[in-house]
Amino acid sequence: MNSSSDKLSEERFSAAAARVMDRCDELANFSEEKGALTRRFCSPPMKQVHKQIGWWLKAIGWASEIDAAGNLLGKNTKIDRPVFLIGSHLDTVRNAGKYDGILGVMIGLAIAELIRESKTELAFDVEIIGFSEEEGVRFSTPYIGSSAIVECFDSRVLDVKDEDGITVKMALESFDCNPAEIGNASFADRNIVGFIEIHIEQGPVLEEQNCPVGAVSAIAGQTRATFGFEGEAGHAGTVPHVLRHDALAGAAEFISAVEKKGCETDGLFATVGDVRVEPNISNVIPASAIVRVDLRHESDTVRMMAWQELKELASQIAGRRGLKLTLETNSNQPAVQMDKEITNHFLKAISDSGYKPIQMPSGAGHDAVMMARMVPTSMLFVRCRDGISHHPDEHVEEADVVAAIKILFRGLVRISNGLLKSRT
Amino acid sequence: MNSSSDKLSEERFSAAAARVMDRCDELANFSEEKGALTRRFCSPPMKQVHKQIGWWLKAIGWASEIDAAGNLLGKNTKIDRPVFLIGSHLDTVRNAGKYDGILGVMIGLAIAELIRESKTELAFDVEIIGFSEEEGVRFSTPYIGSSAIVECFDSRVLDVKDEDGITVKMALESFDCNPAEIGNASFADRNIVGFIEIHIEQGPVLEEQNCPVGAVSAIAGQTRATFGFEGEAGHAGTVPHVLRHDALAGAAEFISAVEKKGCETDGLFATVGDVRVEPNISNVIPASAIVRVDLRHESDTVRMMAWQELKELASQIAGRRGLKLTLETNSNQPAVQMDKEITNHFLKAISDSGYKPIQMPSGAGHDAVMMARMVPTSMLFVRCRDGISHHPDEHVEEADVVAAIKILFRGLVRISNGLLKSRT
Repeated sequence: MNSSSDKLSEERFSAAAARVMDRCDELANFSEEKGALTRRFCSPPMKQVHKQIGWWLKAIGWASEIDAAGNLLGKNTKIDRPVFLIGSHLDTVRNAGKYDGILGVMIGLAIAELIRESKTELAFDVEIIGFSEEEGVRFSTPYIGSSAIVECFDSRVLDVKDEDGITVKMALESFDCNPAEIGNASFADRNIVGFIEIHIEQGPVLEEQNCPVGAVSAIAGQTRATFGFEGEAGHAGTVPHVLRHDALAGAAEFISAVEKKGCETDGLFATVGDVRVEPNISNVIPASAIVRVDLRHESDTVRMMAWQELKELASQIAGRRGLKLTLETNSNQPAVQMDKEITNHFLKAISDSGYKPIQMPSGAGHDAVMMARMVPTSMLFVRCRDGISHHPDEHVEEADVVAAIKILFRGLVRISNGLLKSRT
Repeated sequence: MNSSSDKLSEERFSAAAARVMDRCDELANFSEEKGALTRRFCSPPMKQVHKQIGWWLKAIGWASEIDAAGNLLGKNTKIDRPVFLIGSHLDTVRNAGKYDGILGVMIGLAIAELIRESKTELAFDVEIIGFSEEEGVRFSTPYIGSSAIVECFDSRVLDVKDEDGITVKMALESFDCNPAEIGNASFADRNIVGFIEIHIEQGPVLEEQNCPVGAVSAIAGQTRATFGFEGEAGHAGTVPHVLRHDALAGAAEFISAVEKKGCETDGLFATVGDVRVEPNISNVIPASAIVRVDLRHESDTVRMMAWQELKELASQIAGRRGLKLTLETNSNQPAVQMDKEITNHFLKAISDSGYKPIQMPSGAGHDAVMMARMVPTSMLFVRCRDGISHHPDEHVEEADVVAAIKILFRGLVRISNGLLKSRT
């Protein structure tokens, strides 16, 4: 470990975390709505956020630039060396919390400041990145920013319209970005040794395990599908059970089977979140029940096995009950494994900092999904209260941010030492 | 059996049924809507129906009158004797079929005509009745007509408004009825020996059993209740199953339990017809699921036992899953038993006519519920195609109407003979 990092006192980490919390509060004021935080891709408050972060970067002598896809890049311009990227996204959902996305960028900034303050020397430069678009709120298209970085931006997206009829192209132009130059946002020619995204967990596992920070093993693969059970409507008081083809009763059996599969399979998330019944009247036997299944696992094999079993179960249930089954697969996304080497360094940094080195999959998608296509990518989750996110009640404890900064700093030093060692 | 009834030929019954079918077609033209049959309480087309039936009654020398509750009464004015009432309701649901209600009145009229044609002498006069309101469509209040007949009309109903702000009182007045005289509609002082309502089954049992006509044993008692399961919303990809409180999964288990109870308990109809899930989004663990249960049985004891068991099951399911259970009982109507003596006469008339003497509960409510409070009441169901009613596809076979007329005629002769025998 570089000697300077040892000298970093608890006070420095605490002060850095306090700044992060203050900045998250401050940036939450830049919103499209009064009294609620909503900051979509290329919206005017995003401009204000960029300006504010630019000032903070400038204070440590760093430059900030906005690429053609609206991403904010913060870098030390003085030297040209390998780069380790830290970041997350700057856009929010509607009526959002203060931490989802922005926390990762602010922690990146805090790391930059700590490195400067402590004159820590690493085998690489740190850069921070604030992706322009992750939530998919404005254009129903997530990862607009990060996909440009990794050359996965589909130019047809430029013509997608928001609810006001404004296209992505128009939105970028009004944000002083040149859509024709999106190709230039690519990091393909840059020497990126790694990317880490710090993000709130958006789930209850760290809280349950009493851990402030966890390393992400993989971003879970996901299958989403719609199962339709069609039966026969009938009068609830005149059709005996033996003559019924009750679509909801069939769907209920299936919902229970989905839950059972989820409970029995280690690491599987199997959810029926919505059901639509027709005619949905208390004295009419349901004619139709449509349920949507959401299936996630960090192993694609486990997920696909479960998926196959659920399809067979649905078919059996429908067949036995004289229901017609329709099935539409809405999406099938493979899991994205995090870089093992980088992740191991951060797991050790978690242990070094006195915490349990917990590893967990991410059930939600993140910019890391895109970034992993081009650079060695890792993620750290920070505990959030009651697992709540995408809601004004989203909350992160300052003490957990201290832990996250400490772990991130120590992990970077470990990676740097590893790189230096491999050169000698 | 009175000798004259033996002489009634198949041709007479067939001709009577053909008239019934023609008249159902004809009366279906009297509607509030073009191209669909909707005829609510005190609507202008109800006036036309009354006029038309009045002409048919006049043709056999009978009088028709409209009471203060809008019921049509058809009677032979010449003599004052005990009365056997035949009838059903003349109002319809929106976009109705041609037989629900009206068929029973038209069969009553056919019986009156057959009695006259055949000069059949019975121990009583037959009268027909067309109730003004059974479906509860216009004022969300069923049995407005029949409740007046049996002195169960609640005068607060006069102030209930329809969707146009018109009260029951105003509707009656515009129909040339005097609401102040509703008390006079009472049959309490009349010598009614029995009432029979002929109605389409509105279910598939007679079709399944290959029977044109069935006798109703009882109108099932009904419990309707709303069960609310409250859990915790959560991200479908981040909350492990062991930490979930999935309201829909709990509701699904309960829906299956309700169905199982229905299947296992002879004669029980146990239905969950509607479910409302919040937030009902495919990637969010449901926070709340509200299901409505409809429970019917001809025995109140059986129904209440099942009801108790379902409440306990819901409570167990909620407790085991860490869900909060709310329960609201929406209604609890006791079963109404049909008069055994009259029903037995009709069961024998079914056998006499060469059919299986099937007896079944009515799952739906009928004017017979009200009438049974004052007079010995019985019901006959006529098979309807695919059990469909309250729909333009509602269909009754003419051959089944022949059977119904034959059974009704022979049943009346049997009752008459029974009465005459008891006097000697």
